[in-house]
Amino acid sequence: MTVLTPDRCSINTATLGYKAPIGQVIDAVARHGFGAIAPWRREIEGSDVCAIARHIRDAGLAVSGYCRSSAIPADTPERRRAQYEENCRAISDAAELGAACFVIVAGGLPTDSRDLDGARTQVEDGLARLLEEARRLRVALAIEPLHPMYAADRCCINTLSQALDICDRLDPDGEGGIGVAIDAYHVWWDPRLRSDIDRAGCSQRIAAFHICDWLVPTTDLLMDRGMIGDGVIDLSSMLRGIAAAGFAGHAEIEIFSNNWWAVESEEVLRSCAERVGAI
Amino acid sequence: MTVLTPDRCSINTATLGYKAPIGQVIDAVARHGFGAIAPWRREIEGSDVCAIARHIRDAGLAVSGYCRSSAIPADTPERRRAQYEENCRAISDAAELGAACFVIVAGGLPTDSRDLDGARTQVEDGLARLLEEARRLRVALAIEPLHPMYAADRCCINTLSQALDICDRLDPDGEGGIGVAIDAYHVWWDPRLRSDIDRAGCSQRIAAFHICDWLVPTTDLLMDRGMIGDGVIDLSSMLRGIAAAGFAGHAEIEIFSNNWWAVESEEVLRSCAERVGAI
Repeated sequence: MTVLTPDRCSINTATLGYKAPIGQVIDAVARHGFGAIAPWRREIEGSDVCAIARHIRDAGLAVSGYCRSSAIPADTPERRRAQYEENCRAISDAAELGAACFVIVAGGLPTDSRDLDGARTQVEDGLARLLEEARRLRVALAIEPLHPMYAADRCCINTLSQALDICDRLDPDGEGGIGVAIDAYHVWWDPRLRSDIDRAGCSQRIAAFHICDWLVPTTDLLMDRGMIGDGVIDLSSMLRGIAAAGFAGHAEIEIFSNNWWAVESEEVLRSCAERVGAI
Repeated sequence: MTVLTPDRCSINTATLGYKAPIGQVIDAVARHGFGAIAPWRREIEGSDVCAIARHIRDAGLAVSGYCRSSAIPADTPERRRAQYEENCRAISDAAELGAACFVIVAGGLPTDSRDLDGARTQVEDGLARLLEEARRLRVALAIEPLHPMYAADRCCINTLSQALDICDRLDPDGEGGIGVAIDAYHVWWDPRLRSDIDRAGCSQRIAAFHICDWLVPTTDLLMDRGMIGDGVIDLSSMLRGIAAAGFAGHAEIEIFSNNWWAVESEEVLRSCAERVGAI
């Protein structure tokens, strides 16, 4: 896997800006030779999940992941329960789609809270409950550590070490059902990255690998991710590390970008296909 | 120190947007009752450093730190040497100013490089050389880990663990001359923060403590830091940890903010004085 070809890659539909209906997106992703797709709940919920799953299979695509959890921490027990129930329904849809994992973006601080430790405790408690449901439905939870710049408002799990510690506590015997989604954009800066990737490999916790690039300068905290090769992340080295750690799934291209969302989808897909080969 | 009063605090002059000459800034900071100031090289270099140092002393202020190093990594040996020489001159000015430390913002990736490990090695090698100069002039180097969102373009030292590891390698016998600047904005998200503050205390490495706040949402990667109390950082808990770790210096208020830079300096200083008491 150290030379990527489109069939070893997945397109996360966020990359295309949710501009077309999911059916068209599935066909376009398959036509460009990608091997998998990662859809978002906004494209699935309220539709015929079974039909979408069939469409994806018929197009010859795997589902590298299903995006993504509702926040786990909340300011009231009622809200926490509602979010838990949303997540259970999404795990059920992930199972229907045959997704390799359900991506956990854990959520940040509850409203008006500065209690980051408390939020993290809520995440771990919530994941313990979700893990039962995930195992029952045979869908792996993939905890995605998000870049520390999102700690307050999106995700209080911010390093791979932290995510792997949670996996080890919730699944001490390596029974499975919980792992990590390693997104280059979120973790590339981490001095412990290499050893944490090795650790994740040894414990068979790598459920997903996401790629894009970090631009210099970055002009927006959320919507300025770079196309592969346009930034400073050493994706080649990371890819080798992930492969050496035993990950055999699809490398998922996920680019949130105002610039790329303004580009026609066919051109975005052509660029993705071209760039992965040059990593 | 767990209840802050202005005399236990320092004003980093960046907070005031460099709008007035340093002499006026010194007088204003003293008039508002602060106990220290942290000037920047842009305000000092090319001026009569000895006279500025006297002005600060006569105003009754300490110097909590001198900001800040030129980048250490570079793409050519010539540039690296030039930056080293700039840093040596700045350390000499820090000594003249009687600064509690010289703040090291290590620098990011050299031009066109994706080699983050290489940049980090350059930082450590460069610090080893600077440490000799710092010890000769009796100025402590304070390695400031910067938020991971600055890893590419400003500073490849991004966690307190990483900075402390460097201190331990360069000063294995605890002779001193090198420590860390702990800036709440850069490290508040770190799951290891509490244990790293304890570790820094045990090894007497805390050379500076900087405070401001993380706003939600944050609209700019550089210029949208918050006034104390306006964001989500649990400064109270952090302050207790830093005090328990034995830090007895001034808490330095450093706020880069387009919003606050547009406010008249007297009002900014009044707000700082008022807010520190409410931490």
